[in-house]
Amino acid sequence: MVKVLLEALPYIKKFYGKIVVIKYGGSSMMSEDLKDSFLQDVVLLKYTGMKPVLVHGGGPEINILMERLNMKPVFKDGFRVTDEKTMEVVEMVLAGKINKDIVSKINSKGGSAIGLCGKDGNLLVAEKDLSRGDIGFVGRIVKVNAELLRSIIDSGFIPVIAPIASDEEGIDYNVNADNVAAEIASALRAEKLIYLTDVDGVMRNGELLSLMDLKTAERILRDGTLKGGMIPKVEYSISAMEKGVKTVHIINGTIAHAVLLEIFSDEGIGTMIISS
Amino acid sequence: MVKVLLEALPYIKKFYGKIVVIKYGGSSMMSEDLKDSFLQDVVLLKYTGMKPVLVHGGGPEINILMERLNMKPVFKDGFRVTDEKTMEVVEMVLAGKINKDIVSKINSKGGSAIGLCGKDGNLLVAEKDLSRGDIGFVGRIVKVNAELLRSIIDSGFIPVIAPIASDEEGIDYNVNADNVAAEIASALRAEKLIYLTDVDGVMRNGELLSLMDLKTAERILRDGTLKGGMIPKVEYSISAMEKGVKTVHIINGTIAHAVLLEIFSDEGIGTMIISS
Amino acid sequence: MVKVLLEALPYIKKFYGKIVVIKYGGSSMMSEDLKDSFLQDVVLLKYTGMKPVLVHGGGPEINILMERLNMKPVFKDGFRVTDEKTMEVVEMVLAGKINKDIVSKINSKGGSAIGLCGKDGNLLVAEKDLSRGDIGFVGRIVKVNAELLRSIIDSGFIPVIAPIASDEEGIDYNVNADNVAAEIASALRAEKLIYLTDVDGVMRNGELLSLMDLKTAERILRDGTLKGGMIPKVEYSISAMEKGVKTVHIINGTIAHAVLLEIFSDEGIGTMIISS
Amino acid sequence: MVKVLLEALPYIKKFYGKIVVIKYGGSSMMSEDLKDSFLQDVVLLKYTGMKPVLVHGGGPEINILMERLNMKPVFKDGFRVTDEKTMEVVEMVLAGKINKDIVSKINSKGGSAIGLCGKDGNLLVAEKDLSRGDIGFVGRIVKVNAELLRSIIDSGFIPVIAPIASDEEGIDYNVNADNVAAEIASALRAEKLIYLTDVDGVMRNGELLSLMDLKTAERILRDGTLKGGMIPKVEYSISAMEKGVKTVHIINGTIAHAVLLEIFSDEGIGTMIISS
Amino acid sequence: MVKVLLEALPYIKKFYGKIVVIKYGGSSMMSEDLKDSFLQDVVLLKYTGMKPVLVHGGGPEINILMERLNMKPVFKDGFRVTDEKTMEVVEMVLAGKINKDIVSKINSKGGSAIGLCGKDGNLLVAEKDLSRGDIGFVGRIVKVNAELLRSIIDSGFIPVIAPIASDEEGIDYNVNADNVAAEIASALRAEKLIYLTDVDGVMRNGELLSLMDLKTAERILRDGTLKGGMIPKVEYSISAMEKGVKTVHIINGTIAHAVLLEIFSDEGIGTMIISS
Amino acid sequence: MVKVLLEALPYIKKFYGKIVVIKYGGSSMMSEDLKDSFLQDVVLLKYTGMKPVLVHGGGPEINILMERLNMKPVFKDGFRVTDEKTMEVVEMVLAGKINKDIVSKINSKGGSAIGLCGKDGNLLVAEKDLSRGDIGFVGRIVKVNAELLRSIIDSGFIPVIAPIASDEEGIDYNVNADNVAAEIASALRAEKLIYLTDVDGVMRNGELLSLMDLKTAERILRDGTLKGGMIPKVEYSISAMEKGVKTVHIINGTIAHAVLLEIFSDEGIGTMIISS
Repeated sequence: MVKVLLEALPYIKKFYGKIVVIKYGGSSMMSEDLKDSFLQDVVLLKYTGMKPVLVHGGGPEINILMERLNMKPVFKDGFRVTDEKTMEVVEMVLAGKINKDIVSKINSKGGSAIGLCGKDGNLLVAEKDLSRGDIGFVGRIVKVNAELLRSIIDSGFIPVIAPIASDEEGIDYNVNADNVAAEIASALRAEKLIYLTDVDGVMRNGELLSLMDLKTAERILRDGTLKGGMIPKVEYSISAMEKGVKTVHIINGTIAHAVLLEIFSDEGIGTMIISS
Repeated sequence: MVKVLLEALPYIKKFYGKIVVIKYGGSSMMSEDLKDSFLQDVVLLKYTGMKPVLVHGGGPEINILMERLNMKPVFKDGFRVTDEKTMEVVEMVLAGKINKDIVSKINSKGGSAIGLCGKDGNLLVAEKDLSRGDIGFVGRIVKVNAELLRSIIDSGFIPVIAPIASDEEGIDYNVNADNVAAEIASALRAEKLIYLTDVDGVMRNGELLSLMDLKTAERILRDGTLKGGMIPKVEYSISAMEKGVKTVHIINGTIAHAVLLEIFSDEGIGTMIISS
Repeated sequence: MVKVLLEALPYIKKFYGKIVVIKYGGSSMMSEDLKDSFLQDVVLLKYTGMKPVLVHGGGPEINILMERLNMKPVFKDGFRVTDEKTMEVVEMVLAGKINKDIVSKINSKGGSAIGLCGKDGNLLVAEKDLSRGDIGFVGRIVKVNAELLRSIIDSGFIPVIAPIASDEEGIDYNVNADNVAAEIASALRAEKLIYLTDVDGVMRNGELLSLMDLKTAERILRDGTLKGGMIPKVEYSISAMEKGVKTVHIINGTIAHAVLLEIFSDEGIGTMIISS
Repeated sequence: MVKVLLEALPYIKKFYGKIVVIKYGGSSMMSEDLKDSFLQDVVLLKYTGMKPVLVHGGGPEINILMERLNMKPVFKDGFRVTDEKTMEVVEMVLAGKINKDIVSKINSKGGSAIGLCGKDGNLLVAEKDLSRGDIGFVGRIVKVNAELLRSIIDSGFIPVIAPIASDEEGIDYNVNADNVAAEIASALRAEKLIYLTDVDGVMRNGELLSLMDLKTAERILRDGTLKGGMIPKVEYSISAMEKGVKTVHIINGTIAHAVLLEIFSDEGIGTMIISS
Repeated sequence: MVKVLLEALPYIKKFYGKIVVIKYGGSSMMSEDLKDSFLQDVVLLKYTGMKPVLVHGGGPEINILMERLNMKPVFKDGFRVTDEKTMEVVEMVLAGKINKDIVSKINSKGGSAIGLCGKDGNLLVAEKDLSRGDIGFVGRIVKVNAELLRSIIDSGFIPVIAPIASDEEGIDYNVNADNVAAEIASALRAEKLIYLTDVDGVMRNGELLSLMDLKTAERILRDGTLKGGMIPKVEYSISAMEKGVKTVHIINGTIAHAVLLEIFSDEGIGTMIISS
Repeated sequence: MVKVLLEALPYIKKFYGKIVVIKYGGSSMMSEDLKDSFLQDVVLLKYTGMKPVLVHGGGPEINILMERLNMKPVFKDGFRVTDEKTMEVVEMVLAGKINKDIVSKINSKGGSAIGLCGKDGNLLVAEKDLSRGDIGFVGRIVKVNAELLRSIIDSGFIPVIAPIASDEEGIDYNVNADNVAAEIASALRAEKLIYLTDVDGVMRNGELLSLMDLKTAERILRDGTLKGGMIPKVEYSISAMEKGVKTVHIINGTIAHAVLLEIFSDEGIGTMIISS
């Protein structure tokens, strides 16, 4: 074990005291084994000196509850069309079930987490997102209360954040977790923003791009290489890096311990975007 | 207005900087008007120097969701029999819907609230409550992380707490909100613990007991004066006062601005329990 | 009472934590009833979250003592001609009698005041004021030790300041209290500077100007509208606002609770000067 | 100079950071030269690391103003009979004239002083002193707000205190400065309490007692050795030492630099009382 | 690597934030390879959350310099007979050469060390040790300035301490490093005190005692099991544990990464003394 | 004594709380009497409110040890040619013997010193100095960790610094103490930088220049007035003043109490360089 610990030391030193914002969602969230191994990893990051911040999604669980309630999930361009009834379900599942479940699991693994949604302490302020037409209570982040987050982090807690936020009038919105993670990472000038996804990373012609600079990211965004949910992810990544995030990582959350494999090795397992 | 403000000054002075724990639940929570007026009052308490802490229940809303999910609420001695499926619903409604809804409303009225359940930062530790036999995941509080609450209060926030807590093994429990409020008030050595109920206070022979000392409270607990939910309320009240809470108030939450009427006058509107 | 408290809430919120510098003097100081009601109001401001700072005058009392000592008060353009003997009387009355009397009354009403003159901790530095010719030890403020004031305010005290200050050589000066109040408000970037006077506010053609922007203030200063002591008051007001004070209020201190009436209503009772 | 500085070093080391409470009054206060040299010494104490606190009297100046006002000073057992009119004069002279004059002089010599009376920040609480019968508004100290004094000292200021204090009802009293100094020294657990008097120290059979332990002090208090104002001084001294003051010094304030001569030499110039 | 990191996590959690005092000396100090691997380990302990404190010896290097200076090392019962000339050499080698060399190496491996001897900031106070007769300037520790050490540790530094200390009169002593380490561990209420030696641990009948409680330690100290330098080591260990150190470890410093092997496994490699 | 103390007061006031960096070396270090009187002076500076920082040399003692070890000191332009063996001796003598000896003496005189070399806490970073060709491990300072020094000073300690420092790769260098003192004074924006030398100050045509402005210093540096070690001293002085040091003093350390004589008088005893 000793040999491996010493091999890990350069990575530990490099990221000691640094903030790492992780967007956690998709399939990795639906398997109890993957969930356990991921949250174990988060606790390890904390104990080796990093400051992890979690932003979670929860689409599949929302669908499950909606079905049990005989409601029909509707999507447009991958975004959930959210009427008032749906918003209620979204909030119960994200802020009530998944958020507290993650908090509980981190605590039982030896970490100490606090679960918040964007409304707590006005952590996040949203506005209605009309970029895909009016699809109901779907918002995007316009402000982050970084001071509150920093005070939670400095007290030794791991913040766990549900992607729900109100606007200035107090109307609630369902916000894309990728967007929330990017804005929080930006506001905290995070060292790393990590997206856990269901694919290996950014692919071009069937091949993984394991390292990509900002310019390349901008080019493939325009040239049609990207498909589906990867498009906004890369958009958010570019924006976050322009606001001071050092690197963004898009990795496959269905691989056990994906986060550790990405952080504690030079080659990593997914796509890392660097500034140049 | 000036004259009234000056009449309020002695009450403001008396409770300046003091912690007031309020158990909020029952009918006062089901009417939007009462909810609005109550949360407005909470914001006023904050701005006139008090430090309010809210603990909320949510029984009726839990029942509503259960019914929509074709589940049948079962009670024993007024306590909800809570199997795993029920626990999931309880958590979603309390920590996801009601908690965040209160937070949002306080914020939009000019306060700044943070919503937590007992699992966040290990705020509350519970154990299984077997005093009514095994009725499933029903717990009672054995430990409160007062330091975390104090740091939230000292940062100027109003804590809003959902009555859900894990035990040392990480198993979740549905805890009676009256119990949670009493334990939090005890841990914070609160000035006041206020129970918002659906009745005018403690009644004896059809008459309201507006002032009652600890001894009287203990006697009527034994002599059969009390019925139903009032019994544990008075038990919790006695216990809280023995642990350092200064006064307990049991008032009718269906009266608009009940809390202000109780605090900002000498006679009050419900039952006040004092130490002697 | 509850209804009125809730009506007051928007004003309480608006000025919460804000510094309000009040120049207290004239007739409102000579009536025990007005004094009591005014200092009561100051304590109320403190308890509803504002941070009051008092600067007091004391002309009439100085005259009384001078007469008892067979000295003859002499004035030029409303400013007291101050020789060495007079300066001694001024200091005894302002710093010894009035200042400590105000402190004592605030304390007995539940506030906690500390009385200082400009010499304490070098709070104020003056220079000889020759703008009206040489009228003896009459000075104007050139520096304010804002740090000392802030530390007193942050410790929860209400500073009560007598308008006496030394210059760099240690010579004492009698300073116009209106000047002292304006300079202190400027140094503290106060939310409000309130002048308690014996008239209803700034009058034009026999009519009260209840709201006036900075430009209007400058115009009426030049066009001869103003008379007597109102001229320097408006000069000081303009200067204070240019240095960062948000609004200045000139109100009638002989109306009971004038300060509260001005702050806790939209229309107010006197003249409010706003930046535009 | 260098040689002398090094001779002073052991004394500087010994009292570095220690609190020295000095009662300043009597003849040493009436000569401008002695006043100058004394306040110079106080500044030197501050700069060589001690923490001086001044309590001043002012009897002769009170008499002068009373005479100018055609009032007749009346004494009983050396204590001033104080009716309401007299109290007003006492306050003006002590808190207004002498206190601020001392503050000003210390500041102009390079120190930084803050002048307070017992009413400021409730620094001192008094009660009516009936030990000599009812001689009007004459009080004795029952409580000292040591925290306020400590915060002033720790901010680098020299506190200068006028011996006036209110009781719990807000009634003002003229308090013996020797009493005030002893109570403040006790509350601060001072290293030294120094009484500046008009005599060389405690005399027995025409000879100065330069060193005296607590037991001796108690004996001569009972055996008739002491006369006049020396009796309460020694009483206060004993009480102060019993409450934790390390040494008390009774010295002749009419000798130039008496305080330095007493502190910066082994033999001293007056009477030093030690615990044993 | 990931798997091993996760295996290390329970140990990291267990000792997170805990103080570990390590006595470093003997053969492990004479090999550059062992020195490198040991100091690497120390840096790893720091980065995984422990707070290491180093106390070093340096006997062999002292002998080398003495020989180059034609001085003859003399020992009595394993303690160096230390005359004035020898003391000079001891100090130069320990505080000048070895101490700064360790500091430099820790820094170049990514830690941040500060090297002190007992004289710096009066870190250690010694007295002459006459338990083996008068063998010159050989001392033992009587006081540790724990506050200074804590402030260095809390600033994120690794303290490196040379076993030299003065007595109250300023006379320097050569102190046994085992004694220094035990006293520092006691003063800091350390989690662990680790002795790096040249043997595998405490042996009985040719067999390693890998776990031993305090009672056993006391028995083998009396029954003649122990030989040579192991006797004072076990004496110091017992004393340290009685003063609050949780466990003591006696391990073989000539094994590469001995410290990590001992801390990051349940069985360890040497002798661990526990309280019961 | 009192008279002299009061004469000293203006100097004490002037330099109260100011940082004074003193380069201590040369003959004044070789005489026990001079050493005692100098360190006594340093303690006096501390107790009269200054914040002294010592940088020491130690050439003669290095030579003595080298000779005892049969090594031959070699110099080039007054700088010691330093091979690896020599560096080892330099470090032992400076950081081990002289540094700790000074610390011990200051402590026994009532001060509290902490001895460091440039490697401790990365206090100093050096680079190889090739300005005189390659003369081995001779460096010059490129970075000072002012924060560490400030925290030591603010904790009340007197830092004593040996002129040894590593470069970024961890290679050790012997650095000219004059250079170290100048860089430390610059980094701390010191009030004074004092060079203790073996001559009376800067001489021109056989006459002492007691006051010299920066321009003059630059001129005599170019015009050949200066000889030997005075040239770099004046170079370092100019550089230090350009970086914010207020005055530099070059004085004769063989005069008893030279430092006090220079600081506590207007005329001083050596050369003072002022900015203009």
